[in-house]
Amino acid sequence: MSDLSDLQQKVIAYRDARDWKQFHNPKDLAISLLSEATELLDEFKWKTPDEIAEHLKTSRESVVDEVMDVLHNVLLIAHELDIDIPKEFERKMRKNEARYPVDKARGKHRKYSEL
Amino acid sequence: MSDLSDLQQKVIAYRDARDWKQFHNPKDLAISLLSEATELLDEFKWKTPDEIAEHLKTSRESVVDEVMDVLHNVLLIAHELDIDIPKEFERKMRKNEARYPVDKARGKHRKYSEL
Amino acid sequence: MSDLSDLQQKVIAYRDARDWKQFHNPKDLAISLLSEATELLDEFKWKTPDEIAEHLKTSRESVVDEVMDVLHNVLLIAHELDIDIPKEFERKMRKNEARYPVDKARGKHRKYSEL
Amino acid sequence: MSDLSDLQQKVIAYRDARDWKQFHNPKDLAISLLSEATELLDEFKWKTPDEIAEHLKTSRESVVDEVMDVLHNVLLIAHELDIDIPKEFERKMRKNEARYPVDKARGKHRKYSEL
Repeated sequence: MSDLSDLQQKVIAYRDARDWKQFHNPKDLAISLLSEATELLDEFKWKTPDEIAEHLKTSRESVVDEVMDVLHNVLLIAHELDIDIPKEFERKMRKNEARYPVDKARGKHRKYSEL
Repeated sequence: MSDLSDLQQKVIAYRDARDWKQFHNPKDLAISLLSEATELLDEFKWKTPDEIAEHLKTSRESVVDEVMDVLHNVLLIAHELDIDIPKEFERKMRKNEARYPVDKARGKHRKYSEL
Repeated sequence: MSDLSDLQQKVIAYRDARDWKQFHNPKDLAISLLSEATELLDEFKWKTPDEIAEHLKTSRESVVDEVMDVLHNVLLIAHELDIDIPKEFERKMRKNEARYPVDKARGKHRKYSEL
Repeated sequence: MSDLSDLQQKVIAYRDARDWKQFHNPKDLAISLLSEATELLDEFKWKTPDEIAEHLKTSRESVVDEVMDVLHNVLLIAHELDIDIPKEFERKMRKNEARYPVDKARGKHRKYSEL
């Protein structure tokens, strides 16, 4: 059983029950995804590493909610663009491995163009 | 076989081969996710609906790449925060359904606080 | 009388009255700026051009608020980084002009690397 | 002489020389602003406070460039929306002061709704 397909089916059923497909053009879907990513980042804004660790204990659900909102939006866009996730993820992974070869990238956080 | 776990294992293997866990605090992981979401949005910037449809034909791979980069980052954060994705996704879905009841939200793109 | 300096003085006085300088490292300042930019974009999310025109009439103040919040954050960062705005703006303008020469960029929305 | 008006005149002259007003609807202008804000944030991604301090010395121009790109976009949007910046900035400042009263907000980085 593929759990990715299962999640995507839930996302689509949720959308269709609300008749929202009419709003889901690529630009606004990407804005929505971006907006959720910002809400996740806002959870950590102004906080020190210690405060973030504390926040992850006391407000774990709100952080997890934001991660799930981002995932929801990714799965929705992937469905709209008819992306075969396992296949394309694998393809992109190989591209990443070529861009960040282990011997050059190991222990460095630089962009591939600066390695 | 769970394909979500499979993708996450690939993300972690990729990270560990490069010794990048040391950089992966929640704040920078969220920045990285945000940054990829912006790259996806940039694919559609200044373009009309027709130009976007054309772009999705002529430059499909670069758009798909950005979606996969976002997914990569979501899976990485979910792993770091030790999130049980299927369970938490289901929980958030029920929260969304309560916020956007079908009878109120149907055919509208307003925020739940304005329904 | 420079109105840029005037606005920046207000931003700094506001910050100092609240003893917030302690939180204003470059990374979190940039996150805060990004967060405000997303709130501005959210004002237009899912809306058609007609709906946006209507929104700018009926909810003008909330849109203007977001633009001012972004400006507030830019002026704050520029102050923290000790940027001479008129001088650096002029310098960057010349860089933009070189990247987007009028004869190549006229009437096109492509990135300079694709002109 | 108002330096804000001076900068805005340069932004508009730059735009008009390239015949770009046709692309400048509110949604895409806000996306462009967001995109520049992300580029600024990317300058600090994965970096420790020490690495950021070092980066601000060795790569100061690229950081300043990003701040100026954000400012450029804010001034452009403010012009498009016909915003009287000094007046609206002052108005928003008073709103901020009401939301973050000195006695409650002093030394805290919480959102106004959590003070």
